[in-house]
Amino acid sequence: MRISKLYFFVLVFIASNNFAQSLQWTQVAPGVWKGIVGKPEDYDLLKASGAVMNKGALTKLGNVLFPLVQSDIKAIVRDHKTYLTFPLDKAEQIFGFGLNFQTVHQRGKILELHVDNFAGKDNGRTHAPTPFYVSSKGYGVFINAARYIKVYAGTAVRKDSKNPPVAQDRNLDKSWTSRPYSDAVEMLVPADGVELYLFGGPTALDAVRRYNLFNGGGCLPPRWGLGFTQRVQRLYNSEQVEKEAKDFEDKGYPLDFIGLEPGWQSKSYPCTFEWDKTRFPNPQQFVNNMLSKGVRLNLWTNPYVSKESPIYKSISPYTGSHTVWVGEVPDLSLPEARKIFFGQLKKDQINLGVSGYKFDEVDGGDQYLWPDVATFPSGHTAEQMRQTYGLLIMRYSTQVFHDMNKRTFGLVRANNGGGASFPYVIYNDYYNHEDFITALINSGFAGVLWTPEVRASKTGEEWLRRFQSNVFSPMAMINAWSSGTKPWTFPEVAEQVKEFATLRMQMMPYWYTEFAKYHFEGTPPFRAMNLEPGFQTDLGIKKLEANKNLEENPYEEAASKEIKDQYMAGEYLLVAPMFTGQTSRKVILPKGKWYDFYTGEFAGDGQVITVTPGLNKIPVYVKDGGIIPMMPPLLHAPKAGQKVDLEIRHYGEKPGHYLLYDDDGETFNYEKEDYSFREIRTEKRNGQWGGSISAPQRGKPNSIGNVTWKFMTK
Amino acid sequence: MRISKLYFFVLVFIASNNFAQSLQWTQVAPGVWKGIVGKPEDYDLLKASGAVMNKGALTKLGNVLFPLVQSDIKAIVRDHKTYLTFPLDKAEQIFGFGLNFQTVHQRGKILELHVDNFAGKDNGRTHAPTPFYVSSKGYGVFINAARYIKVYAGTAVRKDSKNPPVAQDRNLDKSWTSRPYSDAVEMLVPADGVELYLFGGPTALDAVRRYNLFNGGGCLPPRWGLGFTQRVQRLYNSEQVEKEAKDFEDKGYPLDFIGLEPGWQSKSYPCTFEWDKTRFPNPQQFVNNMLSKGVRLNLWTNPYVSKESPIYKSISPYTGSHTVWVGEVPDLSLPEARKIFFGQLKKDQINLGVSGYKFDEVDGGDQYLWPDVATFPSGHTAEQMRQTYGLLIMRYSTQVFHDMNKRTFGLVRANNGGGASFPYVIYNDYYNHEDFITALINSGFAGVLWTPEVRASKTGEEWLRRFQSNVFSPMAMINAWSSGTKPWTFPEVAEQVKEFATLRMQMMPYWYTEFAKYHFEGTPPFRAMNLEPGFQTDLGIKKLEANKNLEENPYEEAASKEIKDQYMAGEYLLVAPMFTGQTSRKVILPKGKWYDFYTGEFAGDGQVITVTPGLNKIPVYVKDGGIIPMMPPLLHAPKAGQKVDLEIRHYGEKPGHYLLYDDDGETFNYEKEDYSFREIRTEKRNGQWGGSISAPQRGKPNSIGNVTWKFMTK
Repeated sequence: MRISKLYFFVLVFIASNNFAQSLQWTQVAPGVWKGIVGKPEDYDLLKASGAVMNKGALTKLGNVLFPLVQSDIKAIVRDHKTYLTFPLDKAEQIFGFGLNFQTVHQRGKILELHVDNFAGKDNGRTHAPTPFYVSSKGYGVFINAARYIKVYAGTAVRKDSKNPPVAQDRNLDKSWTSRPYSDAVEMLVPADGVELYLFGGPTALDAVRRYNLFNGGGCLPPRWGLGFTQRVQRLYNSEQVEKEAKDFEDKGYPLDFIGLEPGWQSKSYPCTFEWDKTRFPNPQQFVNNMLSKGVRLNLWTNPYVSKESPIYKSISPYTGSHTVWVGEVPDLSLPEARKIFFGQLKKDQINLGVSGYKFDEVDGGDQYLWPDVATFPSGHTAEQMRQTYGLLIMRYSTQVFHDMNKRTFGLVRANNGGGASFPYVIYNDYYNHEDFITALINSGFAGVLWTPEVRASKTGEEWLRRFQSNVFSPMAMINAWSSGTKPWTFPEVAEQVKEFATLRMQMMPYWYTEFAKYHFEGTPPFRAMNLEPGFQTDLGIKKLEANKNLEENPYEEAASKEIKDQYMAGEYLLVAPMFTGQTSRKVILPKGKWYDFYTGEFAGDGQVITVTPGLNKIPVYVKDGGIIPMMPPLLHAPKAGQKVDLEIRHYGEKPGHYLLYDDDGETFNYEKEDYSFREIRTEKRNGQWGGSISAPQRGKPNSIGNVTWKFMTK
Repeated sequence: MRISKLYFFVLVFIASNNFAQSLQWTQVAPGVWKGIVGKPEDYDLLKASGAVMNKGALTKLGNVLFPLVQSDIKAIVRDHKTYLTFPLDKAEQIFGFGLNFQTVHQRGKILELHVDNFAGKDNGRTHAPTPFYVSSKGYGVFINAARYIKVYAGTAVRKDSKNPPVAQDRNLDKSWTSRPYSDAVEMLVPADGVELYLFGGPTALDAVRRYNLFNGGGCLPPRWGLGFTQRVQRLYNSEQVEKEAKDFEDKGYPLDFIGLEPGWQSKSYPCTFEWDKTRFPNPQQFVNNMLSKGVRLNLWTNPYVSKESPIYKSISPYTGSHTVWVGEVPDLSLPEARKIFFGQLKKDQINLGVSGYKFDEVDGGDQYLWPDVATFPSGHTAEQMRQTYGLLIMRYSTQVFHDMNKRTFGLVRANNGGGASFPYVIYNDYYNHEDFITALINSGFAGVLWTPEVRASKTGEEWLRRFQSNVFSPMAMINAWSSGTKPWTFPEVAEQVKEFATLRMQMMPYWYTEFAKYHFEGTPPFRAMNLEPGFQTDLGIKKLEANKNLEENPYEEAASKEIKDQYMAGEYLLVAPMFTGQTSRKVILPKGKWYDFYTGEFAGDGQVITVTPGLNKIPVYVKDGGIIPMMPPLLHAPKAGQKVDLEIRHYGEKPGHYLLYDDDGETFNYEKEDYSFREIRTEKRNGQWGGSISAPQRGKPNSIGNVTWKFMTK
């Protein structure tokens, strides 16, 4: 017996270290296949996130064929690494690989997917380096590994390529390129095996939907999460915070939740996770006062435990080998650590009525995280912990709220594959408006949410332009932790800012429904034009002409031509932000008729238009037949049970059809079918537009009061 | 028997994968210790470079004690990675970790040592990411692994630290720092074990010397390598090249070798490794013509094999799985590939009289190298090949010349630990003059040579300033491959450029001797002020005040204060380059008297001086007692056997003592003791300065004609 056991051990050792593996595929849901190569690790992204697929919704999306030729997907394990190869067609474009800030087209990139602060250059180091990509051919690939994954996205050229590039002589051949054609996506996963998933189409958006549903569906924020939020300056005390809320109300600016920054805790960097008694002498009364004004609280923290924290002694045995800002790092993959850590948040803050958190500093920047040489009591490596810490802190904080049947909506600096269902929005310290929009576009490929937050600005114009974009994003937020800026700080644009903050509130029924689609159907509420039917018929790799100055561009690198300054917001809206200094811009309207959001006028059809919107408008277009349900300009989101009137807007010539989502807006009762989709129809009869909405379902929450109709296109 | 073998296998497997290893140290030469942990890999930097230590020179440096407490150095193997920890004292500064371009002080850095093009940010990705660091306390550490090594250089803070930082509360404590004190250098080597080396002092320079001698000593270029070199514009034909050489002569500018850029080969990117018949119809005659004018040839190439190359068919079985620019990548760790590759260079070019190569594109930039998923017929991984390709191409090309007993001196884009003895200078496409100087400083810690080459300039001032620095570097070169710029392109500074090119030639006896010291004694000819006695008594970590604008600097990061704009050139010279736009600058003179290089006047002693040298001068200072041997302003380096007169300059008040190196300047006969050091002495007797030089040694080469003396300090 002993001998045969040893034989087995040796054979496993040899097999998992040195030899080629055959990739085994099994269908796990309609349109979703799991592949296994080698010996996948015990701990991975899905284990960390605990994601449970929405099999019902996946089944609804229907069966499709395996979208690639199986033998074209290759896997081999050697040198304790898994080598993966996927085919690429000539005309194929690929998207995804996480929250990239500068490029939408990923074909031609080399990335190392690595949870990190975005440091100004897309190289795979980002807040959500989701190992998932989508092809324009209508399929998606997800690598379920909590490791730093090297990606060659159509860059590596194999000698044995089926479609090798033709060699060109750089001496005289003007068609020479520094980046020869590659017909493969190749990846290196530093593990002795890996589990991967393939998602079918037929469209790229279908593949994205399947990926999100496989992750349990996108998050459904509470209604109040879609209102407006201001993060006050650090070190504010309870009086200052209450005054801030009063100022918003007095001046007529909407406000649903306020974020407290460092200073609410007795110590920060590292943290104590308890209220500071001098600035917040009576936390319960403070929270009550705020809630009574209709304003919830979100608390900043990082997870690094100060020796002064009441949980220090108990959690210390469950922390990693290294400190961050001299604070110990809870091993949140251990139940013991979670119980202590989240127990403290619950006892000291959530039980008082605090509505959510901003989990800061879980992304890295290398200097601001544990090193790769750290070890953790769970036995997970520093690398695995880094790739999953955001998942863990989102998962288990959400669990606390879930156990109380209260939704939360917060901020986080790290996410990854498996995290689509968590009610957290990513933010960072970077502050380029253009790149913020690119990130918003890419968030839709990564199963994450991103806010192009507004912090400070040099001019009123910049302030307003950033604010306008922010209103068409998952979280409308001013983050004044450092600057103390208010919406009205620039008097010359204070009215316009108020107008857009108000518009955000009016559009809440639309946003809420679009998030419900994210949850129940997997459709990202904010996403790339490339997922929109009729956008760009040629998805091939277009290149701009190379800079021919060899001193500046020695490899004659051509730039990729891609659209990263306009995006889709919900089913119907096309948003084209204006950036500081711009007075006009080009907008690409996909095929089909598009209408001006503000006036209802016809804007174009499958064409490039140039618009000069003035400072007061951000260009927004509505698809033909689009329905935008609006509510009155409240200063706070409707509470559970509160009825609000609707003005349902219709755009264009086509009849409208919309399923308006409704539930209590605050609890998880929707998980028990306690929600409804009300059917809205608009059509022209006898030259006259009219609309109808289905009756409320018996026994389901109903927040809709009177309904009026507005047909925007004359 | 079988059972016990299996037991052994299993035990090795367990031991090398999961458990702590004890580090075993053995002394391999006086002041040099080898440490072993786990199971080091078969292929490493020293195996690739073939470096053979100069035990005689190491023995001469003498015995010292093991410079650290052995138990403070920790090593453990887990997750197929080796974790290393080395101690750091409070006041200790560390230097090295390869050819960094922006910082000299490495304490506080996080790096991944990775052969790559330098992309504008010091992060360990550079042309020579030598895994070697030197401490101000006087010891050095070298990790002999051909892997991407993660380095936490005094950044990671362990819970079990002996000297933990004190937690500070960021809320209100103004002394809070984003980067708490760390008392360790930690590294992660992705291998199941590693071989490492410790080098004793007592000074940091001694540790550097030991490292270089352990690598076989620094390279000794041929004399002509220290002259001036011009790289002509790409696609030049033989007539144009000959005319270029004639222009230099006609105008009176020195020129020792000309570099040909893409175009001399029939095809480039990928390459054929044979002359282009249209541009170079008669290569032998062309080479002869050039040599007869005293001008040698250096040929650009990259190693990527075109299908049109005469060696394609034979070498293809010995190339990697992936192509670079559609060219196949010779596995130069295989003798078969080397024989074919270098055989072609020898047959087609070296046998004709070509004197050297510029091996381009062996560094990376990721897009321009094989991917990490590539495999090679030798079985070495893509990572191992990337870390060593520069070593391999330098080693075996040098071997070809060595076999012919002719020295070579060339250019390369990648080097690494083990490569100090190869006669190659690193260059790249980056072009920041300030950062070029920082790289020159760091080259001295990395066992490599670097040229701050001159390519193009916007103004005559920039041209001259860059040229002045270039003359005080390992290779005085204009690289006009793209611009076609000549030394006289800016007429307003053409005379000054000629003056400095001429100065380079006059100083050849000094440069040649200083390189001999690099070879025989290990002292880098170009090095940091930090290695100079009397420079900076306080080597602690000085910080500049942090930018207090939290919007711009959210982590309140302080900048490190370090000297990276002046350096030592040879034993006596302190060079303080001027950058475009500067009219004056500060120079830190170490303790001891320093004199102006041009006038011999006293400049200062252990103080900061401000100088306003005008456009015609680069500030250079000579140490008290400094001897600078100069030769007449020849246009070409003296040939073997040619005698040149010497003017020996003495600076300052102290008597001078110098060992002047001499050999034939062209062959490897110096390896057979066929060289001499002539002793120069200067002293004041009866108020009168006088000098003496020892007689030539019988049977040794003697290149010295008449000697005159110049006592620069009045």
